[in-house]
Amino acid sequence: MDPQVEQQLAPLRARCKDQGDIVRQLKESGAPEVDVKREVQELKNRKKELEDMILSLSPTDTFDRAKMNDLIKRRFFYDISFAIYGGITGQYDFGPMGCDLVDNMLAEWQKHFVIQERMLKVNCSILTSEVVLKASGHVDKFADYMVKDVKTGECFRLDHLIKQHFEKKLSEKKTSQEERETINRKITLLDGMTMEEMDRIVKQYDMKSPLTGNDLSDAMEFNLMFPIYIGPSGNLKGYLRPETAQGIFVNFKRLLEYNQGKLPFACAQVGNAYRNEISPRSGLLRVREFTMAEIEHFCDPDDKTHNKFDQVANTEMMLYSACAQMDGESPRKMTISEAVRGLGLPSLGLLSTPMEVGALDFFLRDRSYILGHEPSQADVTVYKALEQPPPKHLVHASRWYHHLGSFTHNERLDFRGERSSIEQLTGGRQKGLVANETLGYYMARIQQYLLKIGINPKKLRFRQHLNNEMAHYACDCWDAECLTSYGWIECVGCADRSAYDLSQHTKGSGVKLCIERPLKEPKMVESFIAVPDKGAIGKAFKKDAKAVQEALAALSNEDAEKMDKALTETGEYDLNGYKLTRAMIPSFKREQKKVHVEEVIPSVIEPSFGIGRVFYSLLEHSFRVREDDDKRTFFSLPAVVAPIKVSVLPLSNKQEFVPFTTKLADALTELNLLVRVDDSTGSIGRRYARTDEIAIPFGVTVDFDTVNNVPHTVTLRERDSTEQVRIPIDDVPLTVKKLADGKIQWKEVTDKWPRFIAQETTK
Amino acid sequence: MDPQVEQQLAPLRARCKDQGDIVRQLKESGAPEVDVKREVQELKNRKKELEDMILSLSPTDTFDRAKMNDLIKRRFFYDISFAIYGGITGQYDFGPMGCDLVDNMLAEWQKHFVIQERMLKVNCSILTSEVVLKASGHVDKFADYMVKDVKTGECFRLDHLIKQHFEKKLSEKKTSQEERETINRKITLLDGMTMEEMDRIVKQYDMKSPLTGNDLSDAMEFNLMFPIYIGPSGNLKGYLRPETAQGIFVNFKRLLEYNQGKLPFACAQVGNAYRNEISPRSGLLRVREFTMAEIEHFCDPDDKTHNKFDQVANTEMMLYSACAQMDGESPRKMTISEAVRGLGLPSLGLLSTPMEVGALDFFLRDRSYILGHEPSQADVTVYKALEQPPPKHLVHASRWYHHLGSFTHNERLDFRGERSSIEQLTGGRQKGLVANETLGYYMARIQQYLLKIGINPKKLRFRQHLNNEMAHYACDCWDAECLTSYGWIECVGCADRSAYDLSQHTKGSGVKLCIERPLKEPKMVESFIAVPDKGAIGKAFKKDAKAVQEALAALSNEDAEKMDKALTETGEYDLNGYKLTRAMIPSFKREQKKVHVEEVIPSVIEPSFGIGRVFYSLLEHSFRVREDDDKRTFFSLPAVVAPIKVSVLPLSNKQEFVPFTTKLADALTELNLLVRVDDSTGSIGRRYARTDEIAIPFGVTVDFDTVNNVPHTVTLRERDSTEQVRIPIDDVPLTVKKLADGKIQWKEVTDKWPRFIAQETTK
Repeated sequence: MDPQVEQQLAPLRARCKDQGDIVRQLKESGAPEVDVKREVQELKNRKKELEDMILSLSPTDTFDRAKMNDLIKRRFFYDISFAIYGGITGQYDFGPMGCDLVDNMLAEWQKHFVIQERMLKVNCSILTSEVVLKASGHVDKFADYMVKDVKTGECFRLDHLIKQHFEKKLSEKKTSQEERETINRKITLLDGMTMEEMDRIVKQYDMKSPLTGNDLSDAMEFNLMFPIYIGPSGNLKGYLRPETAQGIFVNFKRLLEYNQGKLPFACAQVGNAYRNEISPRSGLLRVREFTMAEIEHFCDPDDKTHNKFDQVANTEMMLYSACAQMDGESPRKMTISEAVRGLGLPSLGLLSTPMEVGALDFFLRDRSYILGHEPSQADVTVYKALEQPPPKHLVHASRWYHHLGSFTHNERLDFRGERSSIEQLTGGRQKGLVANETLGYYMARIQQYLLKIGINPKKLRFRQHLNNEMAHYACDCWDAECLTSYGWIECVGCADRSAYDLSQHTKGSGVKLCIERPLKEPKMVESFIAVPDKGAIGKAFKKDAKAVQEALAALSNEDAEKMDKALTETGEYDLNGYKLTRAMIPSFKREQKKVHVEEVIPSVIEPSFGIGRVFYSLLEHSFRVREDDDKRTFFSLPAVVAPIKVSVLPLSNKQEFVPFTTKLADALTELNLLVRVDDSTGSIGRRYARTDEIAIPFGVTVDFDTVNNVPHTVTLRERDSTEQVRIPIDDVPLTVKKLADGKIQWKEVTDKWPRFIAQETTK
Repeated sequence: MDPQVEQQLAPLRARCKDQGDIVRQLKESGAPEVDVKREVQELKNRKKELEDMILSLSPTDTFDRAKMNDLIKRRFFYDISFAIYGGITGQYDFGPMGCDLVDNMLAEWQKHFVIQERMLKVNCSILTSEVVLKASGHVDKFADYMVKDVKTGECFRLDHLIKQHFEKKLSEKKTSQEERETINRKITLLDGMTMEEMDRIVKQYDMKSPLTGNDLSDAMEFNLMFPIYIGPSGNLKGYLRPETAQGIFVNFKRLLEYNQGKLPFACAQVGNAYRNEISPRSGLLRVREFTMAEIEHFCDPDDKTHNKFDQVANTEMMLYSACAQMDGESPRKMTISEAVRGLGLPSLGLLSTPMEVGALDFFLRDRSYILGHEPSQADVTVYKALEQPPPKHLVHASRWYHHLGSFTHNERLDFRGERSSIEQLTGGRQKGLVANETLGYYMARIQQYLLKIGINPKKLRFRQHLNNEMAHYACDCWDAECLTSYGWIECVGCADRSAYDLSQHTKGSGVKLCIERPLKEPKMVESFIAVPDKGAIGKAFKKDAKAVQEALAALSNEDAEKMDKALTETGEYDLNGYKLTRAMIPSFKREQKKVHVEEVIPSVIEPSFGIGRVFYSLLEHSFRVREDDDKRTFFSLPAVVAPIKVSVLPLSNKQEFVPFTTKLADALTELNLLVRVDDSTGSIGRRYARTDEIAIPFGVTVDFDTVNNVPHTVTLRERDSTEQVRIPIDDVPLTVKKLADGKIQWKEVTDKWPRFIAQETTK
């Protein structure tokens, strides 16, 4: 950054850092969660101030959203659904251009992830049984807060309503300075408030419906899922799925079997999901119906290495760590290898300048910096240069601490909710900013994909979730964020969800969703086993006797103990609806058994793409205005995702051009290229402008030279540069095919064929 | 057909024909619709008898559904949704194999239709506003009948319940012969019954809930759409769409604009649709959530020719016309050109044998055989050979009749609900079995597609809807039906829906969904126009005055007349909620205006694919059992749709094979081929059997010769023939790519490379 700019930013950075330190202190002192939350919220607000300032100081972006939206609507990329009936908020129809662009993005996604990584794929029901979403936690927790107009029933999202009310108050002259400060403070705290706190504010300020002035109801939770009653009786409740992931989890057993029982493997699903937003807004960014593309990568919880990590190790990425956010620092560019593996010990000894020490500090403070071997004396010296003991949470996960004394090598410690030994955690490797190799691998692959389809690398970063943003089950989570005119928006999430989902569905369904992992050495375990009187059971349950016997054999030690106790105390026990008596189970016995495997619930790494958000960012990033004519707007989409690959334009609608136009268009179509023939009247320049608008990367014109000269030649034009060459008509199809597939670059075409200079005018 | 078989079928054919004649007579005599319906139902039942007999007399099909279902479940092609939670009827999850197969089918569909025909494409909301589905007729008409168990609320589809009850009665010994006959007659009539008729039967036979024996409720209609309440207030009602077509219709204006205002054009949409079936059954054939691929082809209602018809003209198709169904005849093979254009006059003169005369009769009786020019004396002779006057409905649509006297050239007649002149109907062409070229073109393209993906041509036919099956708005409709173990099932519909949909949405939305067609010569039209007193209107409606003025200017002649009358008679008129008085509209005037265009609502030809049904038929058609080992089952899917294109199998898990396996698999993946590496233990034969099961068409084995010999060679095997060749490893990727893309055939491989003979054993 420009030093002058840095000077302007310095106080804002300091404000962040101060607040970050307060948060750290509170956490270390074990302060109540509500206090931590409040301060984290303040931290977020300071971060936002900082980012807004950075954006406002950046070189002016000439992006004009109104202009882009005009083009999007005019050429039917997408439009609000059911427009002829007045439309409906939060839902969009994709026209030919939008639809093809999305399809091409997904086809590329398929190649990049599913085929290249040899993933499995499923396509599961969108109508989902309530029991599934109860287990996943969505029925209980997937909610926003709202209030209703008591007369009209109109609903308002609670935080939006309060903010709007406060903003109105701030804009009023009569509001006193003191009131202003109070209000500003409350706005700051809004995101972290409980429903009760917000409700109290609504009442305290006597807020009314902003539309009618009517009274408002008490605040209530509103579940964001759309309920559905399946079948005619209305007894079977379900929901439209709020994400695609659950379909993969509930099929885990079959997928594991399909993969011949081996880990790791990944499974992908692309499809619609639904959220009944209280107030949809920001165009495609917050909608009720949307397409997701999700991957669930299942791996051994004790081995999150990735065998193709080396192939992406040197990928440079812009990472915005939780720590940097807390310190008011900017995102930093580093390779994914550095981010996952840490600085590496050898370099430690070389650190000497304060800057280098600062860099080390940056890494050390970010969660789990685990050294791969005993630190040398030089390293200790360096650490001492930080003039402070390493923060507690760091120390706990580090061999450093071991070196400095105070805990033994084999002691098990609580590392982000998973109890693992130091040995397991390090696995002979060093740890860094990103929790593990598999997570890092996917982050790099996500970035490669986004850049391939045309996302601007300068407007892409990966932001780590702060502790209180992360779902309670996740160990680490990074969002790929794209910078748009709405600010930085989350487009792809990449989370280590640990064993959460499979555990939940194991509990919910009673079916064990786990793998059997061979033990290095077999071990003896004690079983507590019911010894039934088969005769008595047969007599009591007849044809069900077999099922009862099987249920008895499958009892866990715990349940067997419970049954024994119940039979002793009450004489009865209910097993899956069968009433058992002591006469049927006269005794229990303990048995030693040698086991060779242990059951382990796999961890899940989940890259999750919001396709609509990537799509929208891509449109903003590729929107262009011609320098010489600000009415000529277009999308500079890479050929690989451009909806139509090539246009064919006869110079005029003279009959003599028709055979050439038709033959060429057919030959291009034969190669499965989507072609647009534009034989409308209008100058060539005007028609090129029309094809540019819909991002067609290559254009061919059939003119008099085509007809009159042998070999017949045409002009071939590239959209972004508007350069043209003169090329034999028979060479066009394969040349365009190669360009569209990214097999050759435009420069190779201009090198090979003579330039064609023509004035391009739309007049 | 075998003459002996024909002999057995003859009485059944005669029964159909007798009944067909009764239906014809009733229609001609203008009998009440309910009577016609009843007899048509009887006709259908006789047709069914005939078909069942034909099936039972056909050479035995060895297909074993249980065996196929075992394979489908074992290798996770698809399975019931949420199986670990007990599953849910009528919904399925597609596993890796099913998902890839569907995706490949759709990718081929995309190439075959969207790219090759340069169609537009849209992707519209699944959550659909009620107002849209009111206009389309679904809210009022999309229902089945049911009854409820009055105590448990369990629902039963009314016709299923009655049929089940009757079948039980028939199976009881005590049922008398007389009762049996009555019941059989009622079963026969069931399909055509009204709800009231069925309800009467339930009460007459005192039917109870088959599950609990409880009483049943009165019969009720049950709308098959899933209702959805959009937004938190619950005020905005919608439904999950029951078909994808409506999304295209409501976007017609934008699509027409996108196509620069020109007809014809086609728009495709692929996506989910939902029907809340009362009792889903027959696996994938009747489900609640399903994928459709629909095309709406918009064309001028007076020009349904297709400019690519000649390219498909000679496609031979198995057509089962409405007439053949009424006459108890079998489907007939003919070219689509014959079907659309009719026999053509020149051949008429050549007819002499009874069979040829019969063939002519077949065409003539099928709806509208319209000759392109005056028939010759020879033609008249031929017609006389039929020894009967042409049936009335035929004569009405034919110049024949004109030739024979009795109506004038310009007389307008009612032709399938569209009033057209003979001139318009013939358009210089002859008409045949299929209503028009565009419909015929799509039927041929549908067949090409189905055969390309692997549907068995011997198990495919196109069946024309009988008059009372057809939606009331359709002019002609043909279903592509596939023969499966469930009988002939409808997989693709292809209908001429005329102007119905666009008219309905024009009415519903008030937005004109039509084209402006230039008139050959401009014409004068008279308008009847309201002459308002602007001052009075301004005073009365203030800011709404403009809207009122606009509404007045947009009045149709008819409405203006009505208003004039109302103002004269009552002094008031309500215009869109504004109360107008005579003082505001003191007078009306008549004006002559020259117009150059007319507004025309396009016709729609709709091919509509039920993807799940095509998918299921494809599985049945490609299921195979190895002759030498009936445990070795597999799917013989064409490479173009096979989920995985190639397997790579090292002979054993010896380390020395790994580099070859990895390099080869990577090279294949690089070409975007989905590869399966199976390095599990087990003989090669067993592993081939596993890859056959999931339809992998090509397999490569890395063995000791690969490692030891230079150049390194591997074996390449084809699934269906199990033939193998020995081929240099470096030649494998491109060879397999070409095979997978259908660019070369297996024979070219066996011609080029030496055969490799190996015993294939799974033991």
